[in-house]
Amino acid sequence: MAPVDVPVALLGYGTVGAAVNRFLHENADNIERATGHRLRVVRALVRDLKKERDFPAAPGVLTTDFAAIADDPEIALVAEVMGGIDPTHDYILRLLRDSKPVVTANKQLLAQRGADLFAAAQEGGVQLRFEASVCAAIPVIKVLREALVVTNVHRILGIVNGTTNYILTQMELGAEYGEALAEAKRQGYAEMDPTEDVSGADAAAKMAILATVAFGSRVTLDDVNFEGVERITSAHVNAARQMDMVVRLVGRATLVEGGYDVRVSPALVDCAHPLAGVEGAFNAIMLQGDAIREITLEGPGAGGIETASAVIADMVSIIGTKGTGFLHDDACWRTVDRLPAGELRSPFYLQIAVDDRPGVLARVAERLAAHEISVARLVQFQTGGGAILHVISHEATYGAVDEALAEISGLPESREIAVAFPVISQRGISELGWA
Amino acid sequence: MAPVDVPVALLGYGTVGAAVNRFLHENADNIERATGHRLRVVRALVRDLKKERDFPAAPGVLTTDFAAIADDPEIALVAEVMGGIDPTHDYILRLLRDSKPVVTANKQLLAQRGADLFAAAQEGGVQLRFEASVCAAIPVIKVLREALVVTNVHRILGIVNGTTNYILTQMELGAEYGEALAEAKRQGYAEMDPTEDVSGADAAAKMAILATVAFGSRVTLDDVNFEGVERITSAHVNAARQMDMVVRLVGRATLVEGGYDVRVSPALVDCAHPLAGVEGAFNAIMLQGDAIREITLEGPGAGGIETASAVIADMVSIIGTKGTGFLHDDACWRTVDRLPAGELRSPFYLQIAVDDRPGVLARVAERLAAHEISVARLVQFQTGGGAILHVISHEATYGAVDEALAEISGLPESREIAVAFPVISQRGISELGWA
Repeated sequence: MAPVDVPVALLGYGTVGAAVNRFLHENADNIERATGHRLRVVRALVRDLKKERDFPAAPGVLTTDFAAIADDPEIALVAEVMGGIDPTHDYILRLLRDSKPVVTANKQLLAQRGADLFAAAQEGGVQLRFEASVCAAIPVIKVLREALVVTNVHRILGIVNGTTNYILTQMELGAEYGEALAEAKRQGYAEMDPTEDVSGADAAAKMAILATVAFGSRVTLDDVNFEGVERITSAHVNAARQMDMVVRLVGRATLVEGGYDVRVSPALVDCAHPLAGVEGAFNAIMLQGDAIREITLEGPGAGGIETASAVIADMVSIIGTKGTGFLHDDACWRTVDRLPAGELRSPFYLQIAVDDRPGVLARVAERLAAHEISVARLVQFQTGGGAILHVISHEATYGAVDEALAEISGLPESREIAVAFPVISQRGISELGWA
Repeated sequence: MAPVDVPVALLGYGTVGAAVNRFLHENADNIERATGHRLRVVRALVRDLKKERDFPAAPGVLTTDFAAIADDPEIALVAEVMGGIDPTHDYILRLLRDSKPVVTANKQLLAQRGADLFAAAQEGGVQLRFEASVCAAIPVIKVLREALVVTNVHRILGIVNGTTNYILTQMELGAEYGEALAEAKRQGYAEMDPTEDVSGADAAAKMAILATVAFGSRVTLDDVNFEGVERITSAHVNAARQMDMVVRLVGRATLVEGGYDVRVSPALVDCAHPLAGVEGAFNAIMLQGDAIREITLEGPGAGGIETASAVIADMVSIIGTKGTGFLHDDACWRTVDRLPAGELRSPFYLQIAVDDRPGVLARVAERLAAHEISVARLVQFQTGGGAILHVISHEATYGAVDEALAEISGLPESREIAVAFPVISQRGISELGWA
């Protein structure tokens, strides 16, 4: 079969854009032999034509004029690797409505304005693919949309942010939070302004996208309850280690009768659990469903060339399924309600610092019982004049735990704000805790 | 869009066939909403119409006559879940040549006669998909063929046989090989005749299929060097544990300048390596490539419903890409030579039992040196009148190790046949061994 010539345009020509172009240049023959497609970058939208680039584009390719891409009928598809919400959103909308398929790596755009974009794709009768928006080269979107499309995936557990995972594994090696963050910046794993990563917002956008695809119902960034790693201390990391667990920033999407719940928070993960072995800047996603039990995908969740490889795989998939109607549609085909805040259930680990006085344990226990939080394991350690209670609870709702903690933190004997982390384990609760 | 009506035939109606039919019945509405396809089983080929079935087919569906499927123009695709080489091979060949797309779960057929089948698919202009042939619901074929198609995957490490992995994890808990095998039979993880699993032949067929897809060059079962777990003793498992490693049956496919090498053998896997955490009947496959570094997929590698879900995902993918030419082609587009036997390099662990006499260590060391096997770590333990040498070597060729072991086993001081296992670790060799 003669190769399919695929003139491609890029929106953006930074690290990822240049990597896409380099990859296509260096592997053009291999890609053609393996896929029948010859992809070549004919236009790339940039702000500054003069800026130095990792892999310079051929003369005439760079342009500052979006119309040079939007109005060129030769361009068969467009990859958006410029990031940001505006004007990116309007650009993609225009392209899709004009029946140009688009590949995007933009997680925040999808998590915040996905509905618009997929409606435009349907209007234009073309595909919008987004593998690179979640965990770079880990092909979780393709797996969910195509391999597991007939499987009711009802739970996703993910370590989907490499920066925070690197920070937490550094803390396991003895670093304090500030030192670990500084090291992550030195190693290039954290941005100079690390807010999006350490606050959990990056992980939340990825979980929103995954939940949308898995549950077939729109989940936006606003629908995700998220918190980051800023409040994690070495006391938490050490307490986890004593129970043979590790602290990880875990995204969790759950579909139950009555609704869905998507959240990102630090969690204690049992060392025997597959997610506990994910170290450094790696990511992993565990998909649980009726027919498949569980499938875990692990790999590097970021990087220019890794992201570029996902972008190119999406391009090939679009060309390869063009004209079939297959996967033109938005993944959403129903509306599932969000579970009321706080209704999701989990076992928890609680760390409570109190004065070491008679009656204080009773008062703490009473507050837990009042919220139907059942204690599975409890140990108390003395610290100069005070005590730290370490509690593992049976399943309780997030809401009940929040309320109990607020009340306990308000007791006169409370020494600091009590904290709680959900516990992730495949063993029974009674097997967890201290030897 | 109106749903695409997809009349499907099954070759075989055993555990997997009945699971496919049940799954399609119970989830027909969900599948239609998510994919636009309405799949229904209209014919199933069986040997015995009267046999009792897990999920009985509708009246008139079962047939003993292959022509009722081959000659029915209404049937849009066929799933082969009957197993075996003959007559299965001829059936599939006929269907493909007649332009009926086929999905198969038959690893031995593909690994032994794949070239024929893919030629027939090309002749008929239809797809032959085979996700279920390797590790059931773990979507490694789709990931390799579609998500990583532009990535030069040059190394695959896999635990691709659940039976042997279950046996080895039981041996870690203290069982001897025979007990562990008996338990695997009781649990339904091993067949009454477990030869195909414990000999490594099942894993070898899967590795041949994976290597073919990843390297784009035909690798058949005959091209795979394989050995199983029958000679593993608790002495090996215990020695591994002392070095913080586990014994695993590992498939390894390697593409280097000059050729490929595909083999299956017991290996020592560092506990810090992702494959070491794969327990019980689970499978995992690590794919290493230039752009992706490494991606690991883990999940249940067998099971009726898991296999059925992979079969159905393949059906949906075929319907969804029909008429595009996409993936009609055989994954093979080149011919890579097989590396000469024994040329592949790896670090090794050697276990050598000798009489405890002066000079014996020197003679062993001399045999290793003669084959350019460089010792990284060595410890010697006494056992009633003899000694056991535990050696970790730097990288050496399989061939050199085989020759050295044969010579050492022939020394008058040798007490039993010396054994060697490749070592799989991401740490430096000097960090391995005994504390």
